[in-house]
Amino acid sequence: MHRGLYLGRFQPYHLGHHQVLKKIAKEVDEIIVGIGSAQKSHEIENPFTAGERVLMVSSAIEEFDIKHYVIPIEDIQRNSLWVSHVKSMVPPFEIAYTNNPLVIELLGEARIEVKQSPLFKRNNYSGTENKAQDA
Amino acid sequence: MHRGLYLGRFQPYHLGHHQVLKKIAKEVDEIIVGIGSAQKSHEIENPFTAGERVLMVSSAIEEFDIKHYVIPIEDIQRNSLWVSHVKSMVPPFEIAYTNNPLVIELLGEARIEVKQSPLFKRNNYSGTENKAQDA
Amino acid sequence: MHRGLYLGRFQPYHLGHHQVLKKIAKEVDEIIVGIGSAQKSHEIENPFTAGERVLMVSSAIEEFDIKHYVIPIEDIQRNSLWVSHVKSMVPPFEIAYTNNPLVIELLGEARIEVKQSPLFKRNNYSGTENKAQDA
Amino acid sequence: MHRGLYLGRFQPYHLGHHQVLKKIAKEVDEIIVGIGSAQKSHEIENPFTAGERVLMVSSAIEEFDIKHYVIPIEDIQRNSLWVSHVKSMVPPFEIAYTNNPLVIELLGEARIEVKQSPLFKRNNYSGTENKAQDA
Amino acid sequence: MHRGLYLGRFQPYHLGHHQVLKKIAKEVDEIIVGIGSAQKSHEIENPFTAGERVLMVSSAIEEFDIKHYVIPIEDIQRNSLWVSHVKSMVPPFEIAYTNNPLVIELLGEARIEVKQSPLFKRNNYSGTENKAQDA
Amino acid sequence: MHRGLYLGRFQPYHLGHHQVLKKIAKEVDEIIVGIGSAQKSHEIENPFTAGERVLMVSSAIEEFDIKHYVIPIEDIQRNSLWVSHVKSMVPPFEIAYTNNPLVIELLGEARIEVKQSPLFKRNNYSGTENKAQDA
Repeated sequence: MHRGLYLGRFQPYHLGHHQVLKKIAKEVDEIIVGIGSAQKSHEIENPFTAGERVLMVSSAIEEFDIKHYVIPIEDIQRNSLWVSHVKSMVPPFEIAYTNNPLVIELLGEARIEVKQSPLFKRNNYSGTENKAQDA
Repeated sequence: MHRGLYLGRFQPYHLGHHQVLKKIAKEVDEIIVGIGSAQKSHEIENPFTAGERVLMVSSAIEEFDIKHYVIPIEDIQRNSLWVSHVKSMVPPFEIAYTNNPLVIELLGEARIEVKQSPLFKRNNYSGTENKAQDA
Repeated sequence: MHRGLYLGRFQPYHLGHHQVLKKIAKEVDEIIVGIGSAQKSHEIENPFTAGERVLMVSSAIEEFDIKHYVIPIEDIQRNSLWVSHVKSMVPPFEIAYTNNPLVIELLGEARIEVKQSPLFKRNNYSGTENKAQDA
Repeated sequence: MHRGLYLGRFQPYHLGHHQVLKKIAKEVDEIIVGIGSAQKSHEIENPFTAGERVLMVSSAIEEFDIKHYVIPIEDIQRNSLWVSHVKSMVPPFEIAYTNNPLVIELLGEARIEVKQSPLFKRNNYSGTENKAQDA
Repeated sequence: MHRGLYLGRFQPYHLGHHQVLKKIAKEVDEIIVGIGSAQKSHEIENPFTAGERVLMVSSAIEEFDIKHYVIPIEDIQRNSLWVSHVKSMVPPFEIAYTNNPLVIELLGEARIEVKQSPLFKRNNYSGTENKAQDA
Repeated sequence: MHRGLYLGRFQPYHLGHHQVLKKIAKEVDEIIVGIGSAQKSHEIENPFTAGERVLMVSSAIEEFDIKHYVIPIEDIQRNSLWVSHVKSMVPPFEIAYTNNPLVIELLGEARIEVKQSPLFKRNNYSGTENKAQDA
């Protein structure tokens, strides 16, 4: 069993996310989608509630016919606790997919395997502060 | 489309929960399972992390072959905000299933339909304080 | 009985606020003044404590000879919970007065009547982030 | 100008509170009523929201024909910060009225004058933990 | 270099703590004393502020002539984040000294070596809840 | 006994800090170093954890052969509570050393003696917001 974690805010879920998920679906047995900054909504950068984003992601991921978990993750406001926070909220995973430099660093310090790719680059996090929650 | 919300802490998920879910699965098109007190773990009353509980519930609910969402919900520590908090974290729902008196009251004030039944009574939350998060 | 809620940070209370209150006083039986970002003080944008602002507003509103409530409201940091938070802190109200676009949206989603007017436009909240707490 | 602060949770406001307020009204020029544990409601020990309690207290205090402020005060969860928190939320005051031993101690350490009386004894807060917020 | 972490609330620091520290001082090169529940004070179970406890512990530990760090650690309210929280607040350590069962479990899950001894048993934390912060 | 408090974030500890500490060491009997924004790390402006900063400062201060306390101080997010927060976390002190205008104001309101000097000017807090926690 190989479970992969894909992290994002999905404000909104778009084609870039979809292409990444398609690729991940071929590499793992089960996908966890972690919806970051779950407590944010009604902002220009964060228009949708976590519940709305769960609906968007869940609907899109059905296409890939893979067992999945779509999990809202509230911000913890402390980078040094963020990996433990994520691990407590989602099922165990063996690999994480992200191109966010801070998330890569935090996961790396926790000795969690991270995979990035040129494809993910289109899915980057422009305009956000350098916070793990903006993953 | 009729979506129902079933709330619990699932510490752990047990046969009583399973029977309730089986019954709900016959009444709605999609089920949302809200995992309350998501931030708690490693306590006698709350041994499992949210992630572990997501895994338990997701595994069990597959049997019913119904579209479902398993969503951790952290405590918000304010009863008067709890319904808004839950609504922000999960997809829209038309009916909620619970026998917790406080949750029934809070959902009722928010004019959300609540269904309880003798069956659910076996699934009650003995030994917990009178907090919405203990739903 | 018709009770109206007027929201602002009042950093400081100024003539624009006073003119709006004068107008509201003619339209309702009782006025609630909600002092937003109550926990903030000693900042350039937020110099006064909530207590100092309560004093300013209470002193000014006496002129209108109308039953009033001046209520500090701390930020809740979650837009989707903000209306429930405000409602829990103040007496029941039938109408809210504001020109803040986010507050108008949040109140509208909660089906609360909002009144804005050209006069209020002078009383806007320039230089603040797009947060409900900056109402 | 002599302003007095009277602290309580007022769950609910009762005759004991009313008699204390009557007595205070004779001793000061203005009364501040601080409604403690403002964020609590829908609990057996704390049934009413802060807004409901503001309404109760405001209605009752009109009888005494004295300038007054009725201010919800949320818990700060740290006894050593509680006096600073209260001072930031209410207008300046010269004297506080309470019989709560912890509040007396905290105000005393902050060199704030406290007045207690046998009359207040009827107005005590049985069944609550030893927290300043239960004042 | 071998650095050991000794955790407690030290409400107050007593002879039992002192004997444990004496023993630890012989086993490591440097001692970190982590003062738990740092934000608590003015309670029957937690009378002293973190600052007062820092003073007590610092004064006592001088006797052992060993490099030491006395660090207040605020509660994080989430057991699954507690080890990361402690690790972020104190210098790196190779071994922890405690007899608290929950702390032993949490440190064990994080693969941190824990040492307990009959001597420490005298130093246990009776009457406290089963929380990591009560270590 | 004359104890002085020196506040900073020490991200990282540098020569400017060291010169200030050297000067303070000549004026007081004991030094408290308060490490502000203790919960921050892994950010460009705040790269180091509190524990790493404790290690840096503790190592450097040994040179001055003066009794010292190096204490992480988490942000409290409310300027009006910040002085009480600091006082609860550190041993009693008679004088504080800082050039931060907000900290000077907050300490001054609390009638705590503050000392600044041209030397400290090199040690200023460029690029940070106007928050006490950025002291």
